[in-house]
Amino acid sequence: MKLITEVAAQAGIGEEHLELYGKYKSKLSPSLWEDMKNKPDGKLVLVTAVNPTPAGEGKTLTTIGLAQALNAAGVKTVAALREPSLGPCLGMKGGATGGGKSQIIPADEINLHFTGDIHAVTSAHNLLSAMIDNHIFQGNELGLDPQRIVWKRVMDMNDRSLRNIVTGLGDGNGAVRESGFQITTASEIMAVLCLCDNLTDLKKRLNRILIGYDQEGQPVTAEQIGAVEAMTALLKEAVKPNLVQTLEGTPVIVHGGPFANIAHGCSSVIGTRYALKLGDVVVTEAGFGADLGAEKFMDIKCRQAGLTPSAAVLVVTVKSLKYNGGVPKNELQTENRTALRTGLSNLERHVENLGKFGVPVLVAINHFEGDSPEEITDVVEACRRLNVPAAISKVWAEGSAGGQELASELKKLLDHSDTERFAPLYENEIDISSKITKIVREIYRGAEVNFSPAAKRSLAVIERLGLNDLQVCMAKTPYSFSDQPRLLGAPEGFTVGIRDITLSLGAGFAVVITGNIVTMPGLPAKPAAEALWMDEDGVIHGLV
Amino acid sequence: MKLITEVAAQAGIGEEHLELYGKYKSKLSPSLWEDMKNKPDGKLVLVTAVNPTPAGEGKTLTTIGLAQALNAAGVKTVAALREPSLGPCLGMKGGATGGGKSQIIPADEINLHFTGDIHAVTSAHNLLSAMIDNHIFQGNELGLDPQRIVWKRVMDMNDRSLRNIVTGLGDGNGAVRESGFQITTASEIMAVLCLCDNLTDLKKRLNRILIGYDQEGQPVTAEQIGAVEAMTALLKEAVKPNLVQTLEGTPVIVHGGPFANIAHGCSSVIGTRYALKLGDVVVTEAGFGADLGAEKFMDIKCRQAGLTPSAAVLVVTVKSLKYNGGVPKNELQTENRTALRTGLSNLERHVENLGKFGVPVLVAINHFEGDSPEEITDVVEACRRLNVPAAISKVWAEGSAGGQELASELKKLLDHSDTERFAPLYENEIDISSKITKIVREIYRGAEVNFSPAAKRSLAVIERLGLNDLQVCMAKTPYSFSDQPRLLGAPEGFTVGIRDITLSLGAGFAVVITGNIVTMPGLPAKPAAEALWMDEDGVIHGLV
Repeated sequence: MKLITEVAAQAGIGEEHLELYGKYKSKLSPSLWEDMKNKPDGKLVLVTAVNPTPAGEGKTLTTIGLAQALNAAGVKTVAALREPSLGPCLGMKGGATGGGKSQIIPADEINLHFTGDIHAVTSAHNLLSAMIDNHIFQGNELGLDPQRIVWKRVMDMNDRSLRNIVTGLGDGNGAVRESGFQITTASEIMAVLCLCDNLTDLKKRLNRILIGYDQEGQPVTAEQIGAVEAMTALLKEAVKPNLVQTLEGTPVIVHGGPFANIAHGCSSVIGTRYALKLGDVVVTEAGFGADLGAEKFMDIKCRQAGLTPSAAVLVVTVKSLKYNGGVPKNELQTENRTALRTGLSNLERHVENLGKFGVPVLVAINHFEGDSPEEITDVVEACRRLNVPAAISKVWAEGSAGGQELASELKKLLDHSDTERFAPLYENEIDISSKITKIVREIYRGAEVNFSPAAKRSLAVIERLGLNDLQVCMAKTPYSFSDQPRLLGAPEGFTVGIRDITLSLGAGFAVVITGNIVTMPGLPAKPAAEALWMDEDGVIHGLV
Repeated sequence: MKLITEVAAQAGIGEEHLELYGKYKSKLSPSLWEDMKNKPDGKLVLVTAVNPTPAGEGKTLTTIGLAQALNAAGVKTVAALREPSLGPCLGMKGGATGGGKSQIIPADEINLHFTGDIHAVTSAHNLLSAMIDNHIFQGNELGLDPQRIVWKRVMDMNDRSLRNIVTGLGDGNGAVRESGFQITTASEIMAVLCLCDNLTDLKKRLNRILIGYDQEGQPVTAEQIGAVEAMTALLKEAVKPNLVQTLEGTPVIVHGGPFANIAHGCSSVIGTRYALKLGDVVVTEAGFGADLGAEKFMDIKCRQAGLTPSAAVLVVTVKSLKYNGGVPKNELQTENRTALRTGLSNLERHVENLGKFGVPVLVAINHFEGDSPEEITDVVEACRRLNVPAAISKVWAEGSAGGQELASELKKLLDHSDTERFAPLYENEIDISSKITKIVREIYRGAEVNFSPAAKRSLAVIERLGLNDLQVCMAKTPYSFSDQPRLLGAPEGFTVGIRDITLSLGAGFAVVITGNIVTMPGLPAKPAAEALWMDEDGVIHGLV
């Protein structure tokens, strides 16, 4: 592992701009931005994927491997990634730092506390929560309706027992009311941190956060609670991007990690901007499949930040296509070209969808050991028929060497890419229900949108408050284009049911809830935490 | 502000032993301990105080000022302090980094997230909580009694609404049960972190933590839940002490901050040991007044760690003595020698008590602007009558210059101090109720101890489990020698009521609860958080 000062130096960052966290992690000081801000931007590449399956597609892996391969091919490249959340890391998922020969390091520290950014979000969030309940306790000058507080508490832990709780029990402990905890990555503050331009913009956005309604039904914001200055102070360091490296020494900015369902699921705008000044190419990723992640990346992140992607890399695996073709999880190892060909419909539609944003697409076939040559050929052939370039990626087993084809295809694409064709899917000016309908029809390919009574009431509130210029953030199952997890492949003609619409006014979007979205995961029967152990030298095992 | 690398170099710490957190904070690597462990220890000085009053005694201030003054007088001195907790900092108390010309810096960062140690304790604690509830949810193999889980959750925030809650409501969210949150500094893990020798001992102690009882009434420990390896991994960095500096560049180790009521209220053993290798004198402090803080320092921290204090500095103010003499809070500014002389009884008893540990005492009269010369003289005279050295301290206004007299008196004391006379108050071999009775009679000077039925049941459990070799950790109001906050001065003849006794088996003590001990503070009508603000350069104001 190189010292982070070395990695920084190779990326052209002077030591005076580093705020070290140990020897292998560093925050980048705002002084670096002042130094670089007039430099031209590099080209932005989004790594996205087909609909996720239990087999894992390897989006983070591909992002890291591709960045390594581009550097090996002489293209100065920086990766911009999300920070893993501790809860899932100790729960079901394990670490989120890539794998094999394409990892970001120090993986254990990145997966655990890293530089404390998520903890800072937790603190800022819960300060607001405590000040809301204290406001009610101290006399409720604002006339808050305790039954209509929408701001919950957060914790970076998978803890299902905290999903629905009653607080304030006992004598002198405030108003008894129903509430709950979300995981920290689901906090609107995480979304705000990842969309803001700087500390000043962060503060503005925090001020706008809707915390509930008063007894007249009027919205009440964080600004009115008087918490925002202290929250900003708590986020002062978290707003600075973090620099780490890959196993091959490629610089990586790891910053922010908002939920991909009730938030937009991309690493921070600030981190992306730094990366674009440091690299000729920046490889970044978005959560879930392209129906959710890429759509939100384009429609929310790029729109708000004025970013223009030059290309999208769509990660697919033979297993994921077989799964989409109807093969159950435990039979994915077996060759099944019929199912594979059925499942290709999923890939085709994502390719087509990405075209709607005016972004050229490269398909990355993430190779697994059990894949048969014939299956791989089927995918390659399908891409040829679709007239979209494809490359086999072996970055897990081989690092940059296994990403040469991918890097070379991407270079060709970037050489001819015309960013002027990029456009978000919908105009910001159309109203919220039209935005939803457009996404459902053009990306998901549903026939109808069915708004529940609660959703209709929310639309009326949005209308009344004049908030139609918000973007929409779809909270939908990632496993299907539809809102039904088992509808695999490329379903059509379905109806998407909108259960509710909530307001993330600081983030600037309305969260459109389809189905039952869990914002506080639970632990499985065998939590990943149980497999973790530390040897006598303090080295952590069993995390990734 | 000097770079922390400079401060370290002056303290004889090579850069290879530093793990920097920005430019002004550093963790000290275990490699430093390997380098220093065979060096002789410096002399350990405890700063303690009379019973705390609303006027504030300035114990942390005096610790910092004294360390500065000793260094100015040519004595190589290191201070060892507790880390401030975020909750109180944003609540009632404000910052806890000293004041005036005797502060530790960077104060804002130390008061907010610092190096993330408290966040790590929160994560480790709540992982155990989540795994306990998940254990019940997944089938409850251990037969845990959901009504007898004693392990709560923690948050570093003042949030009274979380004191008593019901968790697990709703479908599929686990067992519905009563629970609650404590502030993180009240977590047993914080006490464990502060008493352990190293990572290996930390793990042993975590294994011993009592989390509840099974349906047969048998104790269940953290080890049985399978959480301890992951908890240790989460605490891997937190166990390393942190180095910062005072305004005058004196090195300070800030590490750990356990509650002073249900825990022992001292900074970490590891930090103290590092400091003793680095300084010829180490100045440290303990929470609350000497009846609680010094007793626990001697009986718990020094006993467990094999430390021997060479002297105690007892901080007193004219205001605190007047308050103990019956003057209400808002009249403390006015000269009142009669009340002062009445209140001196409080000082006298603390001096006498400290003598029982065989530790020589120096009284530090922390000077406030409104103190009249006659009042000061009264205190000095009283000390002379008690045959105890005293010095006026003006370290708030003048820094080290205002601590010259204090430093010089301490040097004299240390030159003649004989650490062989030190002994804890009670033998570890006597049973828990005898330990309690001894503290109540000899330190508090109560006549009787009254054990509630719950406390008697707990004593029986302790007997049954063979746990009489635990120390006792008294959870009592800090404002009086008695268990009644308004019984000021030097009360006698009172009865101390023991409401309950709980077990902190990882920390190695039984917590003896008198009265109503709050382990989750609430926010006041005007939280300190509201006064906080950040300017355009990111500088935080209103924190201290």
